[in-house]
Amino acid sequence: MGPHPAVADVRRAVRLSLADLPAGALVLAACSGGADSLALAAALGFSAPRMGLRAGLLTVDHGLQDGSAARARDLVRLAPELGLDPALALPITVGTEGGPEAAAREARYAALSEAAGRLEATAVLLGHTLNDQAETVLLRLARGSGTRSLSGMASVSGLYRRPLLGLSRARTEEACAALGLEPWHDPHNTDPAFTRVRVRHDVMPVLEAALGPGVAEALARTARLCRDDADALDEWADAVLAESRTGPGAPLAVAVLEKVPGAVRRRVIQRAAVEAGAPASALAAVHIDEVERLLTAWRGQKRVDLPGGVGAVRRCGTLIFATGNNLA
Amino acid sequence: MGPHPAVADVRRAVRLSLADLPAGALVLAACSGGADSLALAAALGFSAPRMGLRAGLLTVDHGLQDGSAARARDLVRLAPELGLDPALALPITVGTEGGPEAAAREARYAALSEAAGRLEATAVLLGHTLNDQAETVLLRLARGSGTRSLSGMASVSGLYRRPLLGLSRARTEEACAALGLEPWHDPHNTDPAFTRVRVRHDVMPVLEAALGPGVAEALARTARLCRDDADALDEWADAVLAESRTGPGAPLAVAVLEKVPGAVRRRVIQRAAVEAGAPASALAAVHIDEVERLLTAWRGQKRVDLPGGVGAVRRCGTLIFATGNNLA
Repeated sequence: MGPHPAVADVRRAVRLSLADLPAGALVLAACSGGADSLALAAALGFSAPRMGLRAGLLTVDHGLQDGSAARARDLVRLAPELGLDPALALPITVGTEGGPEAAAREARYAALSEAAGRLEATAVLLGHTLNDQAETVLLRLARGSGTRSLSGMASVSGLYRRPLLGLSRARTEEACAALGLEPWHDPHNTDPAFTRVRVRHDVMPVLEAALGPGVAEALARTARLCRDDADALDEWADAVLAESRTGPGAPLAVAVLEKVPGAVRRRVIQRAAVEAGAPASALAAVHIDEVERLLTAWRGQKRVDLPGGVGAVRRCGTLIFATGNNLA
Repeated sequence: MGPHPAVADVRRAVRLSLADLPAGALVLAACSGGADSLALAAALGFSAPRMGLRAGLLTVDHGLQDGSAARARDLVRLAPELGLDPALALPITVGTEGGPEAAAREARYAALSEAAGRLEATAVLLGHTLNDQAETVLLRLARGSGTRSLSGMASVSGLYRRPLLGLSRARTEEACAALGLEPWHDPHNTDPAFTRVRVRHDVMPVLEAALGPGVAEALARTARLCRDDADALDEWADAVLAESRTGPGAPLAVAVLEKVPGAVRRRVIQRAAVEAGAPASALAAVHIDEVERLLTAWRGQKRVDLPGGVGAVRRCGTLIFATGNNLA
């Protein structure tokens, strides 16, 4: 008799995600104890030895809730039963910069990366599911920030891998139940102070009711398609940037930038501005638009000021990005 | 004293939309009597003579509601007061194919196009607002069908122009009120049998509550960005298709298709399949994926069957699309 279908689904997703790793590599599951990451950890513990890999567990103790240290300790104790060794609890201190969700995320990834480095791990697995991806797309949509943003979370991003982006959260709950694992229910997951919680509990059910079932799957599919599109356009922009100048930091030939579609031109401008020192997070569409007008609506405009003290000017058929004093 | 700011906004949007038209051209407003298209019609009647253009009105009588013929007649009578002449009521018969919304839309556009041709009009203006665009993006999102789909409605599409995509529906209501025009409230706009009505009345308020104000604007911005991206990728795909073969219908060189990003390759496959006779509406992602595997995962696969009796085979370093008998 084979494993429960939900358990088999999670294991298959983990195997596919790790297929490219060399024998003997150490893979760590980042586990909060929630159904998604608990099912993930169990599948890693089962699959890794069968693939010639080593497997361990990391759990972050955010220190924001009573009993979080005890929960982390319990997970570390459970790990060997799941086939995961080493297993580490990582206590972190969460600041407030950028809001509670962003601050917690930043501290969490810093701790995971540090521990992975210390243990010489090749990959860290994250338990994000199809539902998390759908929620991410809706959150990004509300910002109106385009294809790259709508592409959601990557299945592979440096050290991190997300094997479960194609599986529903409900499927991971079924897997835990079939394995007799008792997931932890994070009270933050029902706290409406968090935007993501409101999207999950308020928006998604209303969307399903209005548009029919399968909205989460459709949003996840949108993310995949947008990621491919964004990757292709990034590749084009890289090629145009290289073609337009003799090397990094050199002026860009207007003639090259004029003949490409707007979507590509704006990506080239964005790259060149960031290279020149403009902080990517502060660079808004209005900035890019104004630099673009130096190319497409040229009437002898003066320097365009960008964040970080960077300026853009058009001079002698070229577009020049530089910090203040270099554009006198 | 100038016009009310909302009236000025609608007029400015109409002027911008018509700036490229030659003097003497006839422009028609498609007007249901609702606030959006009524404000649009009034702005066209005001602006057209000041731009050397002629202006008229078309109103479609769907014949689906009591009093629709009388309403159409009232609009035709009102038209000269708005500066619109000619003005025509277009009675249509709505079928059922593809659902009530799709059937009504098809019959409506057919009647508008026919009348515009008969009157030798250069453009037909549609009253879709920023809110309509936001609703369209949400509707498309639920299909999970990618960048082109998310780009919503075009501001210019052949004969049709949508000057109000940057203005809110509320702004057109303000404009009507300021002009003393009494808009018609279409009962279909509150009938929850229509998916769009559910999106408008159920989904949008919940999205605003969960994500904060400005969601409609963000969705409309998403549409613009996705449109630019989709246009750029279409341009790339056209160039690759041309580079990959000696002319329309000729085999495609695998070597050319192998080296481009997946998002471009899949667009090339889609184009070639449609050219060969596969109905675009029936061609699904799974079909494209299977043809792509002839290029990226070649292990001597046989013919891939596509809708419309079209097949794709790989042979001698080329990809060939043809109808059944031509691929014996």
